[in-house]
Amino acid sequence: MPGSSFGKLFKITTFGESHGGAVGVIIDGVTPGMEISEEEVQAELNRRKPGQSDVTTPRKESDTIHILSGWFEGKATGAPMMMILYNEDQQPSAYDEIKDKFRPGHADITYLAKYGIRDHRGSGRASGRETAARVAAGAVARKILLRNGISILAYTKRAAGISCSSVDPNVIEQNSMRACDLIAAAKMEKRVRLLADEGDSTGGIVECVISGVPAGLGEPVFDKIDADLAKAMLSLGAVKGFEIGSGFSCADMQGSEHNDEMDCSGFMTNNAGGSLGGISTGQDIIFRIAVKPTSSIAKPQNTTDIIGNETKIATEGRHDPCICPRIVPVVESMAALVVIDHIKRQAALHA
Amino acid sequence: MPGSSFGKLFKITTFGESHGGAVGVIIDGVTPGMEISEEEVQAELNRRKPGQSDVTTPRKESDTIHILSGWFEGKATGAPMMMILYNEDQQPSAYDEIKDKFRPGHADITYLAKYGIRDHRGSGRASGRETAARVAAGAVARKILLRNGISILAYTKRAAGISCSSVDPNVIEQNSMRACDLIAAAKMEKRVRLLADEGDSTGGIVECVISGVPAGLGEPVFDKIDADLAKAMLSLGAVKGFEIGSGFSCADMQGSEHNDEMDCSGFMTNNAGGSLGGISTGQDIIFRIAVKPTSSIAKPQNTTDIIGNETKIATEGRHDPCICPRIVPVVESMAALVVIDHIKRQAALHA
Amino acid sequence: MPGSSFGKLFKITTFGESHGGAVGVIIDGVTPGMEISEEEVQAELNRRKPGQSDVTTPRKESDTIHILSGWFEGKATGAPMMMILYNEDQQPSAYDEIKDKFRPGHADITYLAKYGIRDHRGSGRASGRETAARVAAGAVARKILLRNGISILAYTKRAAGISCSSVDPNVIEQNSMRACDLIAAAKMEKRVRLLADEGDSTGGIVECVISGVPAGLGEPVFDKIDADLAKAMLSLGAVKGFEIGSGFSCADMQGSEHNDEMDCSGFMTNNAGGSLGGISTGQDIIFRIAVKPTSSIAKPQNTTDIIGNETKIATEGRHDPCICPRIVPVVESMAALVVIDHIKRQAALHA
Amino acid sequence: MPGSSFGKLFKITTFGESHGGAVGVIIDGVTPGMEISEEEVQAELNRRKPGQSDVTTPRKESDTIHILSGWFEGKATGAPMMMILYNEDQQPSAYDEIKDKFRPGHADITYLAKYGIRDHRGSGRASGRETAARVAAGAVARKILLRNGISILAYTKRAAGISCSSVDPNVIEQNSMRACDLIAAAKMEKRVRLLADEGDSTGGIVECVISGVPAGLGEPVFDKIDADLAKAMLSLGAVKGFEIGSGFSCADMQGSEHNDEMDCSGFMTNNAGGSLGGISTGQDIIFRIAVKPTSSIAKPQNTTDIIGNETKIATEGRHDPCICPRIVPVVESMAALVVIDHIKRQAALHA
Repeated sequence: MPGSSFGKLFKITTFGESHGGAVGVIIDGVTPGMEISEEEVQAELNRRKPGQSDVTTPRKESDTIHILSGWFEGKATGAPMMMILYNEDQQPSAYDEIKDKFRPGHADITYLAKYGIRDHRGSGRASGRETAARVAAGAVARKILLRNGISILAYTKRAAGISCSSVDPNVIEQNSMRACDLIAAAKMEKRVRLLADEGDSTGGIVECVISGVPAGLGEPVFDKIDADLAKAMLSLGAVKGFEIGSGFSCADMQGSEHNDEMDCSGFMTNNAGGSLGGISTGQDIIFRIAVKPTSSIAKPQNTTDIIGNETKIATEGRHDPCICPRIVPVVESMAALVVIDHIKRQAALHA
Repeated sequence: MPGSSFGKLFKITTFGESHGGAVGVIIDGVTPGMEISEEEVQAELNRRKPGQSDVTTPRKESDTIHILSGWFEGKATGAPMMMILYNEDQQPSAYDEIKDKFRPGHADITYLAKYGIRDHRGSGRASGRETAARVAAGAVARKILLRNGISILAYTKRAAGISCSSVDPNVIEQNSMRACDLIAAAKMEKRVRLLADEGDSTGGIVECVISGVPAGLGEPVFDKIDADLAKAMLSLGAVKGFEIGSGFSCADMQGSEHNDEMDCSGFMTNNAGGSLGGISTGQDIIFRIAVKPTSSIAKPQNTTDIIGNETKIATEGRHDPCICPRIVPVVESMAALVVIDHIKRQAALHA
Repeated sequence: MPGSSFGKLFKITTFGESHGGAVGVIIDGVTPGMEISEEEVQAELNRRKPGQSDVTTPRKESDTIHILSGWFEGKATGAPMMMILYNEDQQPSAYDEIKDKFRPGHADITYLAKYGIRDHRGSGRASGRETAARVAAGAVARKILLRNGISILAYTKRAAGISCSSVDPNVIEQNSMRACDLIAAAKMEKRVRLLADEGDSTGGIVECVISGVPAGLGEPVFDKIDADLAKAMLSLGAVKGFEIGSGFSCADMQGSEHNDEMDCSGFMTNNAGGSLGGISTGQDIIFRIAVKPTSSIAKPQNTTDIIGNETKIATEGRHDPCICPRIVPVVESMAALVVIDHIKRQAALHA
Repeated sequence: MPGSSFGKLFKITTFGESHGGAVGVIIDGVTPGMEISEEEVQAELNRRKPGQSDVTTPRKESDTIHILSGWFEGKATGAPMMMILYNEDQQPSAYDEIKDKFRPGHADITYLAKYGIRDHRGSGRASGRETAARVAAGAVARKILLRNGISILAYTKRAAGISCSSVDPNVIEQNSMRACDLIAAAKMEKRVRLLADEGDSTGGIVECVISGVPAGLGEPVFDKIDADLAKAMLSLGAVKGFEIGSGFSCADMQGSEHNDEMDCSGFMTNNAGGSLGGISTGQDIIFRIAVKPTSSIAKPQNTTDIIGNETKIATEGRHDPCICPRIVPVVESMAALVVIDHIKRQAALHA
């Protein structure tokens, strides 16, 4: 079974590669009558766009969205909504270098193993550009969620070995790292620039908070809300880990400290991260993801060509030294897609 | 959409609560002709069974498996294979105490929020007993995988603050913690027993290694092999985190150290954990999960009753002070279900 | 992808063969809180049960239903509801005759072709007994529908070459053919008995009316309400055709007579059969199915054994000379499963 | 759950309305490496195209296909293949007349009931133009099938009350009715033209033969090959009935004549229509569909406006007096999508 669809009731199917004709998405299941404009979708896409600062890639991508169906007079009609971004900044010749070599940390080798054929122009389907389609769909989902009082906020919590020591929502869009603490952000930026100059990259941790989720979302026993969030996050190429609430720190805790006790005003703590038994508690859902350092680096590395001969490769050019700031809107979008789907599933259960 | 099914082509649907008539599973898509015996399934179930040692619950459960369909003369027929474990050790009166109170760390409150009704006998559908159905299905999956040269091994890597310093597959079934290092295991056992005596519990980390997976499994962009493993693991009630390969440590690494370089004999490292772009590389798939401390503890804790009045609750009796040893076969089973499904998906892609 | 599940949001998964341990069903997605008793389910099963009259098979089957999960104090809990009927009247030796021969009109040969293995006891998974699981699930669906003012009525419209000339709902359960016209029923019974005496069987046409369906059900463009009904009906082994509203007679009609005109009190005719563009109109949904003559007949017929040698076969014993009366409750059940699913889908769309 | 996807392993998701920006399809699961050209897809689309003769609508549609993803150097890459047809011949003003009126036989009223909103430009999502996306996907499926020795042929069997008395594959593309008998075709054409002149339309019967299907395709008990074909056909707006093999005529047959006997060279007849127990027998799969007379007619009919006032409507202009010839390639495409999906399902079962 192919894997280009996500969600059951607010269901997206994406298409497109970095250097084909376009990337885009069909959303099937948009609540009919909902008002949405291309500008609203574009605003989210602009947050993911390359070239926003010197800690992101200067590569130019046309991220202009076009809604080609399921949309009439500014409203969703209930028919599948197709949104497309045409590819423009194509320099296929720039990829001759990698045509016959496997880039370390990239999916070049596994795509060839899986499909027996490879589109060597850029990363093909494995390109980060594919996530633009997710952000477009996420923008629609987030608008519906907002109408239901649900908001989603992600931010860089740690990068290049530097952690934020506070979470200030107001500063996130004010710094190029999308960090939640301006002082840490400044340090991160400096360190990331340094790594970029060295032809290297760094990883980080992104945290996401979903507020206003009603209690009761999530479908035991397999489609738990946290299970679906974990899948959504690990479906992003750069993500190597997911944790909710206490996360990995729970391993060293005792039941008496980990259990969230209750008093008459509700839960006294939130080690659960907003999910008990895979069903939302009504508290904030809080999770974190581990973002690996960008694989494309200018430093030469050992690899082989497609025949198996040893060689070296250096990925010149236009790449993010740290993917965290640009993954933030993607994380929010995937979280939104999970929550909207479960809202619809809960409505169906009780119908 | 309800959530009791897992997998697409080797598809399981589970049923049953801790105190209903039975728990069980229908597997739809078992490769026809495969030989399997009830004894082989039983052997795996016995590893999950309560009462194996003093670090697991002494509660007695009948875990005797019956295969009631899709099975003829010792072979899978291709028809849905239904396996059932009848519930026997039912002491509903033992649950009067919790009938009107929410147990901290349990799903009592969220099941009520979701369904508007609650089966208060034990944890109902949220009970760990539900995982017996997964282990039964996993036993069938693992047998098919083994025939394909794929083996799966999970073990306790850390518990009660104590880490294993080596991984010795031979010792795992020799210690009651299912730890991979006998010296650490002895310390863990001692510490866990102490916590149990105090009416408390502890968490831990379980690691799982899948060997022999061919390159090419996983379906971009959403059903990546790591995404499906993450979902499988987070679908277990006690799991709060998942990481693959370098996992959360990747956050502090640089691209030049994280990228797995290659020479003519293949990958030189495995920070990827066996997955690039969500497709298996042919290396071992290695992941870890965070297991929360058991919620049921004898120490009294603050909670409310279902009307909202503050009260205290102490969960007497038969509970695992550390769930790690018993979750090990469940982790292996869920991993097996993910891999078998992707083997079938890859076969379909190329048909 | 295996095929033992039906429905998306009120989702059933069936299991069981005619001569294995049991047949049954898991329903995932039952509206929580709904009251249902085993007696209510049993009542529907009794309508499908063999041995009701001399126009149905005298074979004895134990059709006693047991609800083993998802059900507490007479109510659905929202957890998967598992219902089981144990097989009792097993006479495997009675099937030695057919062990190595293909019965004409039966799926013996195709099951072997598909699975490479065959459970020769009776018809295995292809047995009509499998439909008992559908009727059990349908009983639950119908109860929920009834609460929503939706009722379903099927009946034999034609059998053994004799057509009903009126539709009287009150007489359906009063005659052994479940025909909608007592005079025709008497003729049918006489003719069917005659055919049975000759060792032969006959086909027929069953009509089904679904009343009270709100306008708006059905999901363009593939999951149209009529498309899902057609699939549901053709998923019954004995069904060779499906038509809705005007059906095949539309082929000879002109647009000016086929179009259902409207006046201020609504549609003036119902050639559409209650569906326009695959969405319910609010009128009665009316469809008919073609039921083939029972394949198991006492008259000897030409066939081959599994090696390909020519031989003869006569299916002695306990078979329905006309399947129409017993398929009626199955048709109603499948129709109910389609409608309940679309009610939930419509609720999800607008959430 | 929304309904714009069809198929599980060769899975299509369509989008687009008659007067939005475009119609198109994403195919997920195309066998990687398969060669396909835009010209090959275009050739099939041209068969569905309006304006081919005077028995089809003279409306001009741009049916120029563009493949925008999943396709590199003339081959399918395994990534989702997106194909698009931009809408060009838009005359929204032409639809002012129907903006506030319900056209009899059309889905105007049910779309409004379902979605609470309506795109009144043409038939919106219910337009026949949507089937262009199916034909594009079908062209890809048919090419893979052909490589496997499977061919599909549909033709008009009856129209305007005139039946073909022979089936000659060579004449189908030689007459504007796509009938399988030239003499009948000439009569049909004459009668259809007459009806068109009267401002009326007619229905018909289309037959489809799938040759070369291996035995063993179809997934009991719900996803039978005939059940999936029935659904595929009833998912076409103009189709009111489906029958396979003997079809509705089986109702009057006896078991002894309906059962397909076998001798050493195989089945002696094909009343089953190539499916026993929902699994292909290896014989030709033969089915027929009932096509309703075109709803859009120039003759004035009674209807209401959206407020409920009685009025008259005459649909002027560019409509097919008989949809049969243009539905033929759509039927072949949907049949191809069903068969390719089951080939992949069978491969997965045995993996």
